[in-house]
Amino acid sequence: MKATVIGLGLIGGSIAIDLRRRGFVSSLVGVESNAKHARQALEAGLVDDVAPLADALRGVELVILAIPVDAVRALAPAVLDAIGDAAVVLDTGSTKATVCAALAGHPRRAQFVAAHPIAGTENSGPLAALAGLFQGKVNIICERELSSPRALSVAESLFELLGMRTIFMDAAGHDLHLAYVSHLSHVSSFLLGQTVLDIEKSEESIFDLAGSGFASTVRLAKSSPSMWVPIFEQNAENLGRALDEYIAHLDTFRRALAARDSSALYAITNRANDIRRVLDALGARASAGAGLATPIPVPTTNNDRTETLGGTQ
Amino acid sequence: MKATVIGLGLIGGSIAIDLRRRGFVSSLVGVESNAKHARQALEAGLVDDVAPLADALRGVELVILAIPVDAVRALAPAVLDAIGDAAVVLDTGSTKATVCAALAGHPRRAQFVAAHPIAGTENSGPLAALAGLFQGKVNIICERELSSPRALSVAESLFELLGMRTIFMDAAGHDLHLAYVSHLSHVSSFLLGQTVLDIEKSEESIFDLAGSGFASTVRLAKSSPSMWVPIFEQNAENLGRALDEYIAHLDTFRRALAARDSSALYAITNRANDIRRVLDALGARASAGAGLATPIPVPTTNNDRTETLGGTQ
Repeated sequence: MKATVIGLGLIGGSIAIDLRRRGFVSSLVGVESNAKHARQALEAGLVDDVAPLADALRGVELVILAIPVDAVRALAPAVLDAIGDAAVVLDTGSTKATVCAALAGHPRRAQFVAAHPIAGTENSGPLAALAGLFQGKVNIICERELSSPRALSVAESLFELLGMRTIFMDAAGHDLHLAYVSHLSHVSSFLLGQTVLDIEKSEESIFDLAGSGFASTVRLAKSSPSMWVPIFEQNAENLGRALDEYIAHLDTFRRALAARDSSALYAITNRANDIRRVLDALGARASAGAGLATPIPVPTTNNDRTETLGGTQ
Repeated sequence: MKATVIGLGLIGGSIAIDLRRRGFVSSLVGVESNAKHARQALEAGLVDDVAPLADALRGVELVILAIPVDAVRALAPAVLDAIGDAAVVLDTGSTKATVCAALAGHPRRAQFVAAHPIAGTENSGPLAALAGLFQGKVNIICERELSSPRALSVAESLFELLGMRTIFMDAAGHDLHLAYVSHLSHVSSFLLGQTVLDIEKSEESIFDLAGSGFASTVRLAKSSPSMWVPIFEQNAENLGRALDEYIAHLDTFRRALAARDSSALYAITNRANDIRRVLDALGARASAGAGLATPIPVPTTNNDRTETLGGTQ
């Protein structure tokens, strides 16, 4: 199968590694607007070639969009316009309602699969790409009924090859849920990072005192703004509601703290402890999923940041 | 040296493992109010014996307080009253101003060392104790000038044996800094856990969609309330100020989101990205520290929760 990956960041690059190693594609061309990233992707062997968009779509059978969600919305209709009648296009973005709305009524909507493979790290760019990144994780396909059986079959085979379990949802439900279990976590982490950086200006060496708990809660603040701001904007309604609830809980805690209301503080923290049940279940699932196939050794990682590309999570 | 550890949770248990394995103590007695934990600690070989407080202090040369900070405040003066003139007492709590104030003017203040070894996990109880937990990490000693040279020397030897680098601070500065780089992270995580658990009630299977980013930001919500509520209360002034700043940042973000103000959202997330510099430095330090000594193999871990004991972080 002749395939093109648009966007050679963490997600596009990681998909490329697995597709090539496992023989899913006969040739793989990358489209990448950042010249440095294009060069890095070629040097790392993520793709056979990097080409301009029009060339990369000529005669292609499979197109994977792995670019920020604002770019997906802008580009997806034109990509569908440019491909042949037998080609399949899928995206990998962390919001689904916007791209589905942008393609509603498109004459080639059936050739498109709205997907969200839930995987990622806080790093970005082609050098952050990892073999086996998706192994044992969950992929979501939205509006399954609007994709042709053949397009769905190609997409499902691809995600199965990556080691993922695919589940199906409507786009609105996807965006609502992701607001709580992913997008809110990122906002929380970005703002926690900002708060602590503020005091660092006046208090030197504060980070001598930071432990692993701090690192864990602010890790996501390293994530790419060019990937995350479009996600926040496209999911602003759901994320806004989740953020309102989070802020209300923080306000309640703040009042209990000011009042030294021990019983309220114990009630809140005891209640939150129930998250252990959820995390233990997630951990068990991750362990079980990781056993499905032998992970491919990781080729390279680094912390290179990108301003123009992003992954998905 | 004949030593007693008061509190056989994550911190007390982990100290006990290293002290015994490395021959720092000739005998080690534990004091533990939770009968189940006392039994588990004995079975796991963390201590030679478990005894009532009065018995455990008779003829002791070193006492380590590894109990929640409200219990430290209540118990430390009585422990100093009960020991001999040559004995040394140290605590391990995550707040330092309260215990220092409680012991200000105590006739045996010079025999006490106010310490905070910054290490921990989100688990608690004796079965969560780990060999080598402190290796390569930072220990803080406050009010160094109020401890006798001998008491300081014993404490410094102990923390060096654990593989820690000790730095010195005043108690107020310690509590201010820890509010930002530890206590605020815990509040953020507890309340994020609560927010997501709320929506789970109405939306089944939401956690199918949670990725590693979610797990990372809510991990600390698993922490022991009986350990953390007293920390929050004792550090309420500093933590309240940090929390006010965090909530203000969240409010600003919320308004920018509602207004779809892209440039504000980019400014906030780009700014927060600078946390990468801090986390990379922390990571480099942790790697360097871990190389100082061969870690002892981890004997046992689990997720047992305790209602009466806690660790420190």
